[in-house]
Amino acid sequence: MTITKEDIASFEQRYRAAFVNSLSGFKSANLIGSRDGRGAPNLAIFSSVVHLGSDPALMGFVMRPVEPLRHTYRNIKESGAFTINAIPFALRVQAHATSARYEDGVSEFEACGFSQEYIGSFLAPFVKESPIKLACTLADDLLIPANGTRFITARVEAVHLSDDLLRSDGYVDIAKAGIAALSSLDGYHTTGDAVRYAYAKPGIPVRELIYGTE
Amino acid sequence: MTITKEDIASFEQRYRAAFVNSLSGFKSANLIGSRDGRGAPNLAIFSSVVHLGSDPALMGFVMRPVEPLRHTYRNIKESGAFTINAIPFALRVQAHATSARYEDGVSEFEACGFSQEYIGSFLAPFVKESPIKLACTLADDLLIPANGTRFITARVEAVHLSDDLLRSDGYVDIAKAGIAALSSLDGYHTTGDAVRYAYAKPGIPVRELIYGTE
Repeated sequence: MTITKEDIASFEQRYRAAFVNSLSGFKSANLIGSRDGRGAPNLAIFSSVVHLGSDPALMGFVMRPVEPLRHTYRNIKESGAFTINAIPFALRVQAHATSARYEDGVSEFEACGFSQEYIGSFLAPFVKESPIKLACTLADDLLIPANGTRFITARVEAVHLSDDLLRSDGYVDIAKAGIAALSSLDGYHTTGDAVRYAYAKPGIPVRELIYGTE
Repeated sequence: MTITKEDIASFEQRYRAAFVNSLSGFKSANLIGSRDGRGAPNLAIFSSVVHLGSDPALMGFVMRPVEPLRHTYRNIKESGAFTINAIPFALRVQAHATSARYEDGVSEFEACGFSQEYIGSFLAPFVKESPIKLACTLADDLLIPANGTRFITARVEAVHLSDDLLRSDGYVDIAKAGIAALSSLDGYHTTGDAVRYAYAKPGIPVRELIYGTE
């Protein structure tokens, strides 16, 4: 079937959001932790964190200027610091709960059943239950002209991860960590183990990487 | 374990790329199709396509100004049109092969075993084997100051998808379509079926959506 942009424009709002959010494919599952100027913590789920570069290590994510993300945006702009915490499938219900529009002064950590963790002198709270935690500082806050959303870029200052996830070639086994993959606005998925392939070269058949021999 | 940004900077290049690319979580799997001014087609795998907005329908992706993506970038800038085609796990080997640095004039469609499909008057080629295909036009080409990469935003002009994937509430069942989730630079994953949850509200337990009753 074909659905045109005119069809999409005519869809009922929630139907349209569910539809268009499905179209990019699977999404990353992360909780972003931050604190306001008085030290009050905030935690919100994001499905748009993407890798921007490795040298230096940079991540990016999309921020829509609406509640409940407004607290995250304000805190990041004020403090310049935040955390990105991978969400295991086993914690999907608590993670989904952070998307509710809590009032000012309510900590999503407490309301949703996550534990704050502070590491060293980094001022933003990590999610203790997450097996892969990134300490990030704000790099760029870019306006996306097409719809007025923001694309936030962040420097990775430190990575805290479970010892058993790092493979010999630098690959972090996020499937072994049980990290969720997301779909649309509300879908949570387990994944199978990674099937990995060697760097592709023209004219040479793609070769599978066997675990332990990378 | 803790890995600092100084550790990351000291890593060997490929190790660092594998490591940092793992940290954002699962990634979307898409092939971007384009054509140059003489009609020569190009196809390349991207793991950074993200949803930007639903009204209007907008997608974004990260473009590193290096081969083999340079052809895609040049074609998109010249023609303003391209396609985004979801990658089923079953086609992972062919899709991975598109990441090789083919010479000018080589069609990755032919070299990697995909079929070009032209729909209506849209000038960019779709991947016939893909169950979810987006016709896109360039909206914004944003420079990311932190590392000189580009963030490309695109308007969704039309969606071509298999009839059996669209659910009653607008959700597209990408797990049923067998779409792959990616990890790091070279990991391909199957996924389990979606577990979905209702819109979250403060103080109300998160409720699972049962398929067929959304």
